[in-house]
Amino acid sequence: MSILIIGGCGFIGSHLSEALHSSGDELIVFDRNADRQSTPHPRAIYLQGEFGNRGELSSLFETHAITHVVHLAASTLPSTSNRDPAFDLLTNVGDTIALLDLCVQHGVRKILFLSSGGTVYGIPRHLPIDESHPTDPICSYGITKLAVEKYLHLYKHLHGLDYIALRAANPYGPGQLPIAQQGVISVFAYQMLRGHEIVMWGDGSVVRDYFHVQDLAALCVLALRAPVSGVFNAGSGTGRSLRDVIAALERVLGCKARVRIEDGRASDVPRIVLNSTAAQRTFGWKQEIDFEEGLAGVKQWLLKEWIHTSRIV
Amino acid sequence: MSILIIGGCGFIGSHLSEALHSSGDELIVFDRNADRQSTPHPRAIYLQGEFGNRGELSSLFETHAITHVVHLAASTLPSTSNRDPAFDLLTNVGDTIALLDLCVQHGVRKILFLSSGGTVYGIPRHLPIDESHPTDPICSYGITKLAVEKYLHLYKHLHGLDYIALRAANPYGPGQLPIAQQGVISVFAYQMLRGHEIVMWGDGSVVRDYFHVQDLAALCVLALRAPVSGVFNAGSGTGRSLRDVIAALERVLGCKARVRIEDGRASDVPRIVLNSTAAQRTFGWKQEIDFEEGLAGVKQWLLKEWIHTSRIV
Repeated sequence: MSILIIGGCGFIGSHLSEALHSSGDELIVFDRNADRQSTPHPRAIYLQGEFGNRGELSSLFETHAITHVVHLAASTLPSTSNRDPAFDLLTNVGDTIALLDLCVQHGVRKILFLSSGGTVYGIPRHLPIDESHPTDPICSYGITKLAVEKYLHLYKHLHGLDYIALRAANPYGPGQLPIAQQGVISVFAYQMLRGHEIVMWGDGSVVRDYFHVQDLAALCVLALRAPVSGVFNAGSGTGRSLRDVIAALERVLGCKARVRIEDGRASDVPRIVLNSTAAQRTFGWKQEIDFEEGLAGVKQWLLKEWIHTSRIV
Repeated sequence: MSILIIGGCGFIGSHLSEALHSSGDELIVFDRNADRQSTPHPRAIYLQGEFGNRGELSSLFETHAITHVVHLAASTLPSTSNRDPAFDLLTNVGDTIALLDLCVQHGVRKILFLSSGGTVYGIPRHLPIDESHPTDPICSYGITKLAVEKYLHLYKHLHGLDYIALRAANPYGPGQLPIAQQGVISVFAYQMLRGHEIVMWGDGSVVRDYFHVQDLAALCVLALRAPVSGVFNAGSGTGRSLRDVIAALERVLGCKARVRIEDGRASDVPRIVLNSTAAQRTFGWKQEIDFEEGLAGVKQWLLKEWIHTSRIV
């Protein structure tokens, strides 16, 4: 397999590159930050570029015989996507249609797309949510993820392009930027390790389904190789409130959190827990990393890369 | 109510203007063909313009105190939308997001959007289809209709803008252009009345749910006034194959059809019949016009406007 990973230097992309690296496949990593890749893999090709630049993308397909594509690029965040839905639509759906056209033109066999289990369903009618749950997003981000899933289905129907859309829950783990607007575990852990206050949106009752990014990467590898197309949830099946997360961080980090409360956000659904039995059954996937074990890994990584470092933040 | 009808000079728009005209509401009809409106209503305001022109649309909202919007504009057809999905997305979804932003800015109370019962569901898993059936379109047209439904839901959630999306089956009736690429009843009837051959895609087994455009217009009026938001099917609940339609036309028109068969189209689903009991129950709507009675009306209209006329075609 010759695998193109779009957005391959991001949090999930780096772990996926790591997981694919050992398999002997050819890896081409396309990312707007490819020049900043800290630990490049010796056998991978790194190309810097913009996903929305059709010229760059098509020349990439012309110079490499790509058989599989992993599409991890996203231009928006759930929390801010509602401020400019038109931009979200244009960049995330419009540019993905261009990618799908290139895949068809160049005979790509399969594409894996990272969808969003936390936003495509909207407010849950029941928990845990399986893939047949109604899809009524309350943020533009969720609509554009859903629209891409529909185009994947269309291109399979029209052109035979195999696909997997993974409706991922909340991945966490080493490498997740602790100064970003998403990835609450890394953000909270970093602030707590430094003795800083953490900012909690709402009353802390918001429930999410956190699972380890290495478990997500392992699922991507399995799904990419399986002779199956479709949409699958990917999560732990366990719901944790923000308060649960803070309590677990206090245990693992060995320090108390100082919490400042701010208003809840309209784009947040109150609770999300995913039923991922379809992915488990179809791909023989199972979660390997226990939550507190995962948090300990985040702690180690933060201490090494962000605390005991000369990095200026 | 002060009602803006976008695309109000088209087939459905004309019948809806007719239905609203008698109610005493202020009507503003915005259409790229507003200058060609053959029977303008004395109390309606006709404005010619492009839906995609943000300047025209926003000046319209600034000069008229619009309380309700009916959005009937579409830039693509199901049968050809797959040839340029990016155009479909940009014009039908992108431009509708701009419209929704204007509705919020100007305090519009409710918007009615014409979705598509024939394309949003994709290949039916069971018949008749109700609104909870999975939505896996096999044409881009269906994806963009579905995406707009999701944005309507989002804007209701974020901004309180009430909405109705009608997943209409196949409306037919007087005024449906008999030389277009859709609207098989008008097209077939016109050719048959002139003794011309009709072209049938596939073997004639394709089943659709035909219902009269005046019944659709009546439903639009009810739905616009009801204090309800949501997505509703709109159809007859009766499936008719192309062969059934041709046989009915032969009876009503009193002539035999000469049929030429061409290959089926990838964008066509094999059968669609809609369950519209939710709309019936919610709005007190029911179908008034019987199928063959409706065909007789199409015949009268074609004879008057297209056959016994000096129109050059």
